[in-house]
Amino acid sequence: MPTELNDLTSMTSGPTRRDFLARAMAIGGSGFLLASMKAWGMDIASTADAPPLLQGSGKGKTVVILGAGVAGMTAAYELSKLGYTCKVVEARGFAGGRCQTARNGKVLEELGGEKQVCHFEKGQYLNFGPWRIPFNHRSTLHYTKQFDIPLELFNNDNDASYVYSVNPKSPLAGRRMRQFEVKADMRGYVDELLAKSLKSGIMDQQVTAQDKTLLIDYLVNEGYLSNKDLRYRGTPGRGYKVNPGAGISPGPGVPSDPLGFSDLLQSKLGHIYHSVHEFEQQATMLQPIGGMDGIAKGFEKRVGKMIRYNTEVVSLRNFPDKVEVTVKDLASGAASVIKGDFCLCTIPLSVLRQVETNFSDKFKLALQGAAYAPVGKIGLQMKRRFWEEDDGIYGGHVLTDQKGINLISLPSTNWQGKKGTLLGYYNFEADAAEISALSNAERADFALAAGEKIFPGQYRSSFESAFSVAWHRVKYNLGGWAVWSEETRASAYPVLFEGEGRTLLAGEHMSYLGGWQAGAIESAWAQIGRIHRRLTA
Amino acid sequence: MPTELNDLTSMTSGPTRRDFLARAMAIGGSGFLLASMKAWGMDIASTADAPPLLQGSGKGKTVVILGAGVAGMTAAYELSKLGYTCKVVEARGFAGGRCQTARNGKVLEELGGEKQVCHFEKGQYLNFGPWRIPFNHRSTLHYTKQFDIPLELFNNDNDASYVYSVNPKSPLAGRRMRQFEVKADMRGYVDELLAKSLKSGIMDQQVTAQDKTLLIDYLVNEGYLSNKDLRYRGTPGRGYKVNPGAGISPGPGVPSDPLGFSDLLQSKLGHIYHSVHEFEQQATMLQPIGGMDGIAKGFEKRVGKMIRYNTEVVSLRNFPDKVEVTVKDLASGAASVIKGDFCLCTIPLSVLRQVETNFSDKFKLALQGAAYAPVGKIGLQMKRRFWEEDDGIYGGHVLTDQKGINLISLPSTNWQGKKGTLLGYYNFEADAAEISALSNAERADFALAAGEKIFPGQYRSSFESAFSVAWHRVKYNLGGWAVWSEETRASAYPVLFEGEGRTLLAGEHMSYLGGWQAGAIESAWAQIGRIHRRLTA
Repeated sequence: MPTELNDLTSMTSGPTRRDFLARAMAIGGSGFLLASMKAWGMDIASTADAPPLLQGSGKGKTVVILGAGVAGMTAAYELSKLGYTCKVVEARGFAGGRCQTARNGKVLEELGGEKQVCHFEKGQYLNFGPWRIPFNHRSTLHYTKQFDIPLELFNNDNDASYVYSVNPKSPLAGRRMRQFEVKADMRGYVDELLAKSLKSGIMDQQVTAQDKTLLIDYLVNEGYLSNKDLRYRGTPGRGYKVNPGAGISPGPGVPSDPLGFSDLLQSKLGHIYHSVHEFEQQATMLQPIGGMDGIAKGFEKRVGKMIRYNTEVVSLRNFPDKVEVTVKDLASGAASVIKGDFCLCTIPLSVLRQVETNFSDKFKLALQGAAYAPVGKIGLQMKRRFWEEDDGIYGGHVLTDQKGINLISLPSTNWQGKKGTLLGYYNFEADAAEISALSNAERADFALAAGEKIFPGQYRSSFESAFSVAWHRVKYNLGGWAVWSEETRASAYPVLFEGEGRTLLAGEHMSYLGGWQAGAIESAWAQIGRIHRRLTA
Repeated sequence: MPTELNDLTSMTSGPTRRDFLARAMAIGGSGFLLASMKAWGMDIASTADAPPLLQGSGKGKTVVILGAGVAGMTAAYELSKLGYTCKVVEARGFAGGRCQTARNGKVLEELGGEKQVCHFEKGQYLNFGPWRIPFNHRSTLHYTKQFDIPLELFNNDNDASYVYSVNPKSPLAGRRMRQFEVKADMRGYVDELLAKSLKSGIMDQQVTAQDKTLLIDYLVNEGYLSNKDLRYRGTPGRGYKVNPGAGISPGPGVPSDPLGFSDLLQSKLGHIYHSVHEFEQQATMLQPIGGMDGIAKGFEKRVGKMIRYNTEVVSLRNFPDKVEVTVKDLASGAASVIKGDFCLCTIPLSVLRQVETNFSDKFKLALQGAAYAPVGKIGLQMKRRFWEEDDGIYGGHVLTDQKGINLISLPSTNWQGKKGTLLGYYNFEADAAEISALSNAERADFALAAGEKIFPGQYRSSFESAFSVAWHRVKYNLGGWAVWSEETRASAYPVLFEGEGRTLLAGEHMSYLGGWQAGAIESAWAQIGRIHRRLTA
């Protein structure tokens, strides 16, 4: 039986108990579910806040960890503290996995592509893997704190930034608008429509007389409507034509006019921006000062000695009493066998399915369960921070429906500095596949053409240097992150998380925080608890 | 005639022209107004972006500047670049005016109050004057850039922070809620009500068939409603009971349940928080790293030699060809007369009306036109950043209707540091007056009692040291900022901005950006243009 409060894996794996929990959920909602579980002594505080508190020692036991990414290094760091010998195998010459930062001298070679060397100036960088840490990723923040990695805010939500549509059916196409204009106007018109309808009595069937009064009061208090006639005529929050200032002129400033309601509706900007922040995009966000790879380096500093770099995994075999991993030294080409009492494999499934193993057919089938996301990013070093100087945009994302662009993200660091490196696109799926077929120079040109529409006269002329990545073309990754269908999440994912023989899997793919470092860390936390129990049972 | 494009003061002061502009505005809105002004060659780009471009030299001319706050030092800096001799008179022993930061050793003595010495630890501070710079205050940002003052983001808008009501009529009183819960639920229910009403046909008189379809589509796209039945049942954006994570448990996590619509309406939380950001509170916000007084010091470094510290203004006299300011050296008590060709007076009106002058009765009457805001703040040094560690709140404001508190603002710097200094209240008007009657220790106790309700068990036990200010009790300020009524804004303000004889006024009170450094800077920019024209005409 598991001893940690936070491990319910075996408890919830039986169909009867799981059925009961599902029924508890259906009957009474999550509150009742929690109560039921508590009644059984099943507390479901998650692994999210801190590594599991493990008792006992791992002295004399060896865990072979495949992959020195964030998951692998988390496991090596925590297991070695318990006394385990950790042997970490890493195909690359450096640790961190996808947690990489492009700065001067960084080399990236895509499969079948040219060799790229980063020519950004000193101080300029792009986090081309993970690039933001939401406040609710407490696991990631656990290590930034533990490793004294200085953080700064990442502006993930800047309403002063632009939204720009090229949809030919949109009456607002080709018009650069501040997000606060669009949001204020949509909200203002919606509030007006609702408030007037409430007032008119046509909704008296829908709301009680008391709620009606309170709701009109609430809507007026939101600040968009005239208290007198419930009309929306614009609001200072959508910005001014001329800002208020000193003296008589500009004095109170010149208010701005709202966009038309029908124009807004027809432009379908709701498909470009979301006023709701999904859980994974909730502010506040943070980032390490100087680059996300500060996290990778924080781990590497502590577990680097356990890592065999430039070493590829050739095969993996479970035995009743041990694991054997055959590896190839990439420098010499020599093969060797690493033995251990247990294996934690953090290799992305996209790569692992090509490794020779003695897994069961069922497990091998499950390894096929996740697709890997084509994802592209490009960093563009600009000699001038025109978005700050000319437009007053301090970080955040310019949102656009330009194909293959999605967003232009402005740096959240070195405010008012001379130069800046922005993210020129962040593309996915078919777009990412298509654009990844271009050379780095062509990708830059593609990104510049799109940005030039939004910052005419500035974007292309300020450009100095580009660095791009297409994660699906990066060896040892072959994709940005695992993508589960509803079906494979139910069928393959539990099989993989359960593991087989003396091998367990960890990595963002073994979590519901796909693509986030928190998923990698928390999956490692969960699996080291299980390894420890198995080896000390 | 003014030569700068940005000065319309004299152009708009004639009643005929002003009437015409008002009519242009009424007929065609601000777009037509702008077009009309442009047709006259009147471009109304504001003074907000940069100081006026002034031609000619001020060599041999002396401007006496009263007050070494942000307005006074802006004027001294810019005028001295033109060759003027600037004589700055400052009653305090340091420059910056209200732009002050409390850190170890800072002394503050309120009128009739005890002498406070700040005992914060090294690295801890509170900006007890101005404390944030909105992205649209380009004038302030002009100097942070020019003076190389490093900035960081100020988190003015953290939906992960709490809202906490003590209103006994509220069904949600005494309940600590994340702002994103409340906002998501209000928006979700409102969207549901509107979408269902649209769907039912009862609003067919209000919207066209096309807009109806588009609006339902928009509302669903906002992300709150089920596409199937347009119901709101909560959303991941309002947070989880148990966050998603690794493996099977927590796996997808446990969703949270929405608050009740009627409960929300009855609790009138719309009076505590606003989902709309007014112009002055628009994100993005920034702050100088290490304290807002970095701005004061940036100016002082450049104009400090021109400042006579510890020197009170006794009287001010305009003559046809000069100004004479009688001052008193506070150390020796000796009086002396400073002469100049012009005077720029940046003394708050609350203080200036007590200075002996030879202003006209009309001008003296106008000086009475602004009330000065009672404002209180308190900094509380906490030995542990429990709001980050326990609650995952990284900066932003805890909003509450607790009398005299309004908000508890969490520091936007030194993330994950050991200690932190938060703003324990920010009170105004009658509340500020009432609380300012307390001793510093009593004020701290008052603030701690309120915070303890929201962070029980942590707030009081983490407290180490307090520093408080009541601006209406601070000599040489007598209030936080000028408050104009609609009437005095129309009657007194233009008279004061026009100035009299060889004296012009500057300061936040001479702007529509009351209480902000941008108002001080932009008023100085406007007035130095006028002084320069007068002296070089």
